[in-house]
Amino acid sequence: MSDDRYERGWQRLRELAGEQGERVIEGLRDIAPDLGRYVVEFGYGDVYSRPGLGDRERQLTAIAALTALGGAEPQLEYHIRIALNVGVTQSEIVETVIHCAPFVGFARTLNAARSAKRVFAAAGSRGTD
Amino acid sequence: MSDDRYERGWQRLRELAGEQGERVIEGLRDIAPDLGRYVVEFGYGDVYSRPGLGDRERQLTAIAALTALGGAEPQLEYHIRIALNVGVTQSEIVETVIHCAPFVGFARTLNAARSAKRVFAAAGSRGTD
Amino acid sequence: MSDDRYERGWQRLRELAGEQGERVIEGLRDIAPDLGRYVVEFGYGDVYSRPGLGDRERQLTAIAALTALGGAEPQLEYHIRIALNVGVTQSEIVETVIHCAPFVGFARTLNAARSAKRVFAAAGSRGTD
Amino acid sequence: MSDDRYERGWQRLRELAGEQGERVIEGLRDIAPDLGRYVVEFGYGDVYSRPGLGDRERQLTAIAALTALGGAEPQLEYHIRIALNVGVTQSEIVETVIHCAPFVGFARTLNAARSAKRVFAAAGSRGTD
Amino acid sequence: MSDDRYERGWQRLRELAGEQGERVIEGLRDIAPDLGRYVVEFGYGDVYSRPGLGDRERQLTAIAALTALGGAEPQLEYHIRIALNVGVTQSEIVETVIHCAPFVGFARTLNAARSAKRVFAAAGSRGTD
Amino acid sequence: MSDDRYERGWQRLRELAGEQGERVIEGLRDIAPDLGRYVVEFGYGDVYSRPGLGDRERQLTAIAALTALGGAEPQLEYHIRIALNVGVTQSEIVETVIHCAPFVGFARTLNAARSAKRVFAAAGSRGTD
Repeated sequence: MSDDRYERGWQRLRELAGEQGERVIEGLRDIAPDLGRYVVEFGYGDVYSRPGLGDRERQLTAIAALTALGGAEPQLEYHIRIALNVGVTQSEIVETVIHCAPFVGFARTLNAARSAKRVFAAAGSRGTD
Repeated sequence: MSDDRYERGWQRLRELAGEQGERVIEGLRDIAPDLGRYVVEFGYGDVYSRPGLGDRERQLTAIAALTALGGAEPQLEYHIRIALNVGVTQSEIVETVIHCAPFVGFARTLNAARSAKRVFAAAGSRGTD
Repeated sequence: MSDDRYERGWQRLRELAGEQGERVIEGLRDIAPDLGRYVVEFGYGDVYSRPGLGDRERQLTAIAALTALGGAEPQLEYHIRIALNVGVTQSEIVETVIHCAPFVGFARTLNAARSAKRVFAAAGSRGTD
Repeated sequence: MSDDRYERGWQRLRELAGEQGERVIEGLRDIAPDLGRYVVEFGYGDVYSRPGLGDRERQLTAIAALTALGGAEPQLEYHIRIALNVGVTQSEIVETVIHCAPFVGFARTLNAARSAKRVFAAAGSRGTD
Repeated sequence: MSDDRYERGWQRLRELAGEQGERVIEGLRDIAPDLGRYVVEFGYGDVYSRPGLGDRERQLTAIAALTALGGAEPQLEYHIRIALNVGVTQSEIVETVIHCAPFVGFARTLNAARSAKRVFAAAGSRGTD
Repeated sequence: MSDDRYERGWQRLRELAGEQGERVIEGLRDIAPDLGRYVVEFGYGDVYSRPGLGDRERQLTAIAALTALGGAEPQLEYHIRIALNVGVTQSEIVETVIHCAPFVGFARTLNAARSAKRVFAAAGSRGTD
């Protein structure tokens, strides 16, 4: 009954996250497939398909939200990778993390910086660009 | 010894937040004046004076971080007002709050939407623009 | 395109929350109507329509999650009211809050107990039953 | 002076958690034995010995609270194991995690689903039952 | 069966918090009296009766923990009052709040400073001493 | 322009944290050097250089704040090491963690106790002293 949303979400997820996105949904298949479906439908088919913000802004705000939340390193690193995919530079990602420091403090911010470092290293990158 | 940073921060705070910014610092004067000074110096003199992100992006990510943090309604409403000051539209603010829903859930997001509603109402506005 | 989900969600929301549920969605109409729609569709049309847990269990776990989250008093009180609507007793609600104390500590738990007290008082009740 | 509570708590902990419960307390012996004692006395001797909720409900709400709290994976996995011990099915555990998604978002929920997956895998199970 | 702990806790609570402590327990009487009993027994009879830290240190660390937790203003203000009762100065309370700023950010810290301001004002004080 | 603060902060960081402090700043050099600079300037040059609390009190409150925050194990373990450096005993560190239990619950507290255990073990210690 919600096929359109699923299709649209799946397209959006692939467009943004590529194979790593498929792997997240795949990883939920044997434990909570419906949770994976909701991520696709609600997360990507509904919210990420809205026109009101651009991809860059969606990734910068996702990084800020996950930095502030804490304890969400896998999700943060996943969305840092999406940010790189949609053309956010490493500098802008780091800048977003630094911007969170006055709001949420150094503990959350240092963890986020380490997440960025791990993602950039795996991407064969230098850390600033 | 850090006069430059204070001056720069104070200018930046006034430019972004106007009188409401002065009132926050003023409100700390008799309880924790140095905390007010750090907000000016570190928050505005250091971080908000960095070139790596534009004012719009700084406000969208501030709104996302404070939505995710929760229990920070005064700060969230303050930064929603700054967002309006720097030209972020009401729609973009609401869009940022909606974007947080998949990440941090409806409880935090509904509270943030109410904060936006209060700010927009006080600004004599309609809620969408 | 997601009319079924909206209809199903709206029925479920009315069945569980009655007029207070409609008011929450109504209250979002002029600020973030799509957020209200997602609450109906995803919250009630998808998740609250699933068969795997009974209404009582959904409310006890909602109360536990919102107690643990903190800073979500409006949502907690709303779901305490739903709990009463679906036949959870005041004692069971209080017991769920007490059960959270070892996990999340007295600060979150005392706030939740006060929320329960407010809801029970407004319901013209005694506080234990 | 609180021997009864300790005895009652220890019995309760063994009944619910078996050897893994003993190991948690044992693991605190050389660092903070009194903290282990309080877990036994307050957590199990007081709260888990109360009559107002059944074991199933106590575990479903514990899972919801720890999912919402975040950053509590060891405790969450421990209580998922207790849930299995007291007859909660894998499906009900997953359903509880999914139920938390609208309240606390996908970041916390995906982490909890992974915790469930790890516990079920270690228990030699299939993931749904 | 735990009379000693209750007695000891009640004495400790009165000694530290005076009438405001009694009011908190009293306020729980008609909603969750056992939660009030656990606060007395575990909070004050067990933990606050331990010899390993002095009263001043217990209050400074309580203020830091509640500042970091967020959304716990009633508990924070209660423990700021206890801090004053056991001889912590207003300056030391403010200093503790400021000390938290690098760790947990300005949002949590500004809220805590406002809590301190409210408590000091109600105590007929000036804000620094 | 803020050389004094950096110098003062760097001295303070070395005095408190020794080589591990240098490593944290060093570890940020290739990802977010300015974040490292802010930690030195604001964290150590401003806040840790204030006279209002002693080093022992600053470490006890840092441990309490990071225990309450959760998801901050690297920072917590770092500050437990500083606590040992400035003469806080292992018993006092554990006592501070136990003191947090009534406020923030066993989940956060057990994680903090394990962090303390790891630090004490690496320091070739016994766990109590």
